[in-house]
Amino acid sequence: VLPSPGPRSDDVPEVTLADVRAAADRLRGVALRTPLLPFGDPSRDRGDPSTWLKPESLQPIGAFKIRGAYNALSQLSPEERAAGVVSHSSGNHAQGIARAARLLGIRALIVMPDDAPAIKVAGVRADGAEIEFVSSDNEARVVRAHEIAERDGLALVPSFDDTRIVAGQGTVGLEIVEQLAELEGSAAPARVPGEPARAGHPRALTIVVPIGGGGLSAGICIAAKSIRPDARVVGVEPELAADAAESLRVGRIVRWAPERTAATIADGARTSALGRIPWAHLQRLLDGIVTVSEDDIRMAMLAAATRARIVVEPTGALAIAAWSRHRATLSGGGDVVLVVSGGNVDPAAYRRSLSEAAALSSGGDA
Amino acid sequence: VLPSPGPRSDDVPEVTLADVRAAADRLRGVALRTPLLPFGDPSRDRGDPSTWLKPESLQPIGAFKIRGAYNALSQLSPEERAAGVVSHSSGNHAQGIARAARLLGIRALIVMPDDAPAIKVAGVRADGAEIEFVSSDNEARVVRAHEIAERDGLALVPSFDDTRIVAGQGTVGLEIVEQLAELEGSAAPARVPGEPARAGHPRALTIVVPIGGGGLSAGICIAAKSIRPDARVVGVEPELAADAAESLRVGRIVRWAPERTAATIADGARTSALGRIPWAHLQRLLDGIVTVSEDDIRMAMLAAATRARIVVEPTGALAIAAWSRHRATLSGGGDVVLVVSGGNVDPAAYRRSLSEAAALSSGGDA
Repeated sequence: VLPSPGPRSDDVPEVTLADVRAAADRLRGVALRTPLLPFGDPSRDRGDPSTWLKPESLQPIGAFKIRGAYNALSQLSPEERAAGVVSHSSGNHAQGIARAARLLGIRALIVMPDDAPAIKVAGVRADGAEIEFVSSDNEARVVRAHEIAERDGLALVPSFDDTRIVAGQGTVGLEIVEQLAELEGSAAPARVPGEPARAGHPRALTIVVPIGGGGLSAGICIAAKSIRPDARVVGVEPELAADAAESLRVGRIVRWAPERTAATIADGARTSALGRIPWAHLQRLLDGIVTVSEDDIRMAMLAAATRARIVVEPTGALAIAAWSRHRATLSGGGDVVLVVSGGNVDPAAYRRSLSEAAALSSGGDA
Repeated sequence: VLPSPGPRSDDVPEVTLADVRAAADRLRGVALRTPLLPFGDPSRDRGDPSTWLKPESLQPIGAFKIRGAYNALSQLSPEERAAGVVSHSSGNHAQGIARAARLLGIRALIVMPDDAPAIKVAGVRADGAEIEFVSSDNEARVVRAHEIAERDGLALVPSFDDTRIVAGQGTVGLEIVEQLAELEGSAAPARVPGEPARAGHPRALTIVVPIGGGGLSAGICIAAKSIRPDARVVGVEPELAADAAESLRVGRIVRWAPERTAATIADGARTSALGRIPWAHLQRLLDGIVTVSEDDIRMAMLAAATRARIVVEPTGALAIAAWSRHRATLSGGGDVVLVVSGGNVDPAAYRRSLSEAAALSSGGDA
């Protein structure tokens, strides 16, 4: 289960806490500082005030991807800005690039899979970016984006295998640690009686985060563990797209065929393989990866709707699903933060998932 | 029964900005400072960055009602706390009282209508409050709560006709004004090109807020207009429960029979009449009330899910519905804040509303 420890490869650039802090400065006024929402099952544990959601679904584009995309685009040279950018994405990164490009006045062209959710395609178009569709294979997207970059002289902005992207996504981890420290420092009059008081040293912290290409999880590891070395960060993947879990197990990046990962409803986690830059950091810093079933994901989407009143896409529900399925493993006795990566799901697919989840939960849809 | 129009009656207590600020202090660490979420239709107006949602659905109990309830209960005397409280509510205030009582260690008994959504009843029970059901008539609830208060020696905490409740709900308005001022002051690098710069004096402000008994709308009027006398505050009601609109038109509190208002899906707005304390303030301060249809409400629930990724209950969707239906009337050229009052809706009813809305919107469910 645990990766072989060891030094990073020398040829992979490192992302540091300073990079994440610089990204946070650039993102002020662009990305929302999403609140920590208490997430408990009151009937089970009287409110469970130590479990939190970090709802990146509330970002302007409905996903954390605006963080990395804006952090990358805002660092382009004037010449690069004038020429425009090309990127590749299964959907949410495309929306992040499209929005960042619009805010910065940059032309953007994005290579997307032809099975991307319509709501994500519409979001990209509404922000004025151009789209080229290819098959549902993230390596085909990367190849095509490189071709276009060379042909048209555009700057290529990858979706996760990029230090600027990892640093931008890391601001999620920075905020989590900061927000929990603010809670520790507050008078906190509303702690439920019987809860341990928040005083002295911080409580244990576990962060649960979905893994696709590894940009978000690597960034969170870097930011959170630099400030709180005691923090645990655990990844989540669908059983049907568990390439990162296998990679961590065998100690090298393992690729799953796109035809295989296409089976999960979590379209944001269909990425065939981790990026080299995320992997170099995850291998050192990640505490483990758990997997969940498709039904776990649907049940988590329903739980998010009824217990936190937020719409989450399948990939966005992964951490909630992990908390339901692997609670004993994940609970570290202190704060548990479940990162909700996004909420862009086609309305019909959303209703279908909620309906299937209601049928699964005995009496849960009274 | 009918207060005369004109200046406030001397026998109705006034709620001031100082009361709201005191409530804000009490609520620190209890209620979430809900973020302002940008809410635009990118395909229509390139992001519409001046329209915001104030998502009270993200509060721990899924509605703004925790604000007034906690503000009221935290001011009880030690003797009153020891005896316990009784209240009456269509659902969300019940949850607010139940949660506040649990946090403060007070026994709570709540009179609820027998047609309250199951999710709201479950929320009250999970927080350990007792429930007594009566018919769907808010006046019957009030009478019964008074009987119980007298019989058992409990402090009665009304759901809206109470200065402490109005002051607590007013913190929503206080936050809106403060948050917009913070945006004005920020570097705001992310304004879309072409947007007027935020500099010098603040932009025009319109707040749109659902009206049931008037506690939230009155509180927002008091807080927002005390700080920003130029602000407009407009109420929204379902056409099927437009007693407050009629009251404002004729200049006195008009009562609609509960059998009549029961027809709207917006269960939080079924209140038969405004409270006297809210009315005294609304009559002076409110700029108008618009009404929306049941289909407008369903479409707004779908828009909230797809464009803001939040689950809103029918009453919570009223301001969004008003913005779609009465945009020309409501737009004041500056910031428009749509207050989303809550998100507690039974899963099956939620799916049905989304499905009906998708059928209504031509091609909107692709």
